[in-house]
Amino acid sequence: MHAPRDLPSIAADTLASLRRRRPRVHCITNAVAQNFTANALLAAGAIPSMTISPDEIAGFIARADALLVNLGTFDSERRKATDIAVAQAGAKRLPWLLDPVLIDRSPPRADYARALVAQRPAAIRLNEAEFSALAGQDGALAAVAAYAIDHRTIVGLTAATDFVTDGKRQLRIANGDALMALVTAMGCAGSALAAACLAIEKDALLATGAALLMLGVAGEIAAERARGPGSFAVEIIDALHHLDRAALIARAKVT
Amino acid sequence: MHAPRDLPSIAADTLASLRRRRPRVHCITNAVAQNFTANALLAAGAIPSMTISPDEIAGFIARADALLVNLGTFDSERRKATDIAVAQAGAKRLPWLLDPVLIDRSPPRADYARALVAQRPAAIRLNEAEFSALAGQDGALAAVAAYAIDHRTIVGLTAATDFVTDGKRQLRIANGDALMALVTAMGCAGSALAAACLAIEKDALLATGAALLMLGVAGEIAAERARGPGSFAVEIIDALHHLDRAALIARAKVT
Amino acid sequence: MHAPRDLPSIAADTLASLRRRRPRVHCITNAVAQNFTANALLAAGAIPSMTISPDEIAGFIARADALLVNLGTFDSERRKATDIAVAQAGAKRLPWLLDPVLIDRSPPRADYARALVAQRPAAIRLNEAEFSALAGQDGALAAVAAYAIDHRTIVGLTAATDFVTDGKRQLRIANGDALMALVTAMGCAGSALAAACLAIEKDALLATGAALLMLGVAGEIAAERARGPGSFAVEIIDALHHLDRAALIARAKVT
Repeated sequence: MHAPRDLPSIAADTLASLRRRRPRVHCITNAVAQNFTANALLAAGAIPSMTISPDEIAGFIARADALLVNLGTFDSERRKATDIAVAQAGAKRLPWLLDPVLIDRSPPRADYARALVAQRPAAIRLNEAEFSALAGQDGALAAVAAYAIDHRTIVGLTAATDFVTDGKRQLRIANGDALMALVTAMGCAGSALAAACLAIEKDALLATGAALLMLGVAGEIAAERARGPGSFAVEIIDALHHLDRAALIARAKVT
Repeated sequence: MHAPRDLPSIAADTLASLRRRRPRVHCITNAVAQNFTANALLAAGAIPSMTISPDEIAGFIARADALLVNLGTFDSERRKATDIAVAQAGAKRLPWLLDPVLIDRSPPRADYARALVAQRPAAIRLNEAEFSALAGQDGALAAVAAYAIDHRTIVGLTAATDFVTDGKRQLRIANGDALMALVTAMGCAGSALAAACLAIEKDALLATGAALLMLGVAGEIAAERARGPGSFAVEIIDALHHLDRAALIARAKVT
Repeated sequence: MHAPRDLPSIAADTLASLRRRRPRVHCITNAVAQNFTANALLAAGAIPSMTISPDEIAGFIARADALLVNLGTFDSERRKATDIAVAQAGAKRLPWLLDPVLIDRSPPRADYARALVAQRPAAIRLNEAEFSALAGQDGALAAVAAYAIDHRTIVGLTAATDFVTDGKRQLRIANGDALMALVTAMGCAGSALAAACLAIEKDALLATGAALLMLGVAGEIAAERARGPGSFAVEIIDALHHLDRAALIARAKVT
């Protein structure tokens, strides 16, 4: 087992592999986030695809290295596509990540998210309100750890300090910048990066932590150049593109 | 009744309240505009949500402080969601704004817009061609005023000089920049800001005028830094984020 | 017949006409690409519309000067809209361009693309993997030329060097920058520009070549200012907006 202090180095290895192997990440994600998510994946080295047509999703999953299921747009076509994609991911042991966006605002979406968790995502990335809606209890860290064990998954709870756990091990990542909360789809992009890392790093705790560290460090670099949330959204893509081992190791705040 | 000359000060108060109270603005809007609209709302201080699923729209409206109905994507799912959302907004007296995008190009969309006006939006924001299609007559200011009185709403007619009226009072706002017409979704973002202001300022004439003034002043600041429409779209988000009372008052061209 | 060496001058004429005549380009395109595509068209001088509603697509086509059919989002509503739009374009002799995005990953999408080719697009823009899926053979230039003749269309095969042919004439355009491959929807935007040029330049080979030259030169200018793919996506819109005859002629690498 890796100690948390290894995470920056593991993240650097994962990033180098992303750029060398260019995994295909199929994203079932919301319309607000599609463009920014695709550009974040490309900047990190992965190759995105985004189709949600039930007729053809199987063809995309067959050639994908990881799958993102983001519930931010909850229309009937996306649900049909998700059901097909998740079943196929299970059958071919493709790692997939669930991002249950805004389930705290919509009971039917929360119900659907719970049904998806039963199908064993490799990881779940969400915020505290979404965790409460998913688990039916607040996001105290002990409750998050218990949830991860019960559902045999990784939970990545993002906040000012991100918390990633499989129930036994835990990572705390204190990187990032307040501007990240002022750009739509930033969390969605983090989930997509985590899905990309799941294609590379087989330990899903480390893959999820690596992705959140990459995004947090890129956010800090971007904040140093940005004048507001508009330029920040541009700079974080540039920062992801130029991110390297030295920056990850020098800037990581991981415990 | 406030004189038009009060608008910059009212806009400054509204902006300060937006940032303090962070109203939730639910946006049924078109796919082209969703990302830019969400980022414009976040930059001004509001919290966007964007779902269009008929199954869950009621849950979002229940927790929203204002509603935007933008007809730029006119698919059957969005129409179903709109019908539910508008009925619920009426029942809970939630202010909502109609943006009848491009109804001058599509008779079925114009028919639908007319049916929505009968459900009493707090305000309608549109351009002159859209007004003509909605009202069946050209956008002479007397016709616009008569339309506002007949339909008991506010009309915000945007052009080089914006015109906002409830039929009795009127505001003319001459801020903005020609680059605004070269960035897609700029009008949609203005409508979303007006919906956000309706959550704060109960006088819908002033709320609509305040939003158009904010966007116009931010546009002027952005144009001073931008080198073209690409950088302008970035700079206007930064400018909205940094917009303050001093800039609104110093730059306002309101009569 | 124009020699390839005329292309920069023809592209400059076409761009000047775009800005003077402002053709309306109706785009049936994917959700990832809609915003960037609309902004690229606006920057070049064209006026985009994007509706995909089967109920109203006919109204938009009736007023359009060119049509783009991009298969990147392959949902049932877009297919219905496409069938209506393509039939109407044929009836009114409106030029239209097919962009069969990612058909190499999806057999049903490839089948649909082949059915559309039978309806005689003025041009097809695609990459080599997509050509192979469409034609059932690899993208050797002789095979591309034969395909263009057999299907009486123009093929624009984009790569590091773009190749445009009607089967008899051919253009090679070596402009562009590697960053173009790291921004999502760049190819989609190139297809939209080509559709806009089809509204101006009646020789579809030259129209397609002119658009690819414009985008390639704008990409080179943008790359000189950008620090990564995020800022590149912004700079290329600015560069399209400022593109002029002098830059097209000085920078063109056409054979």
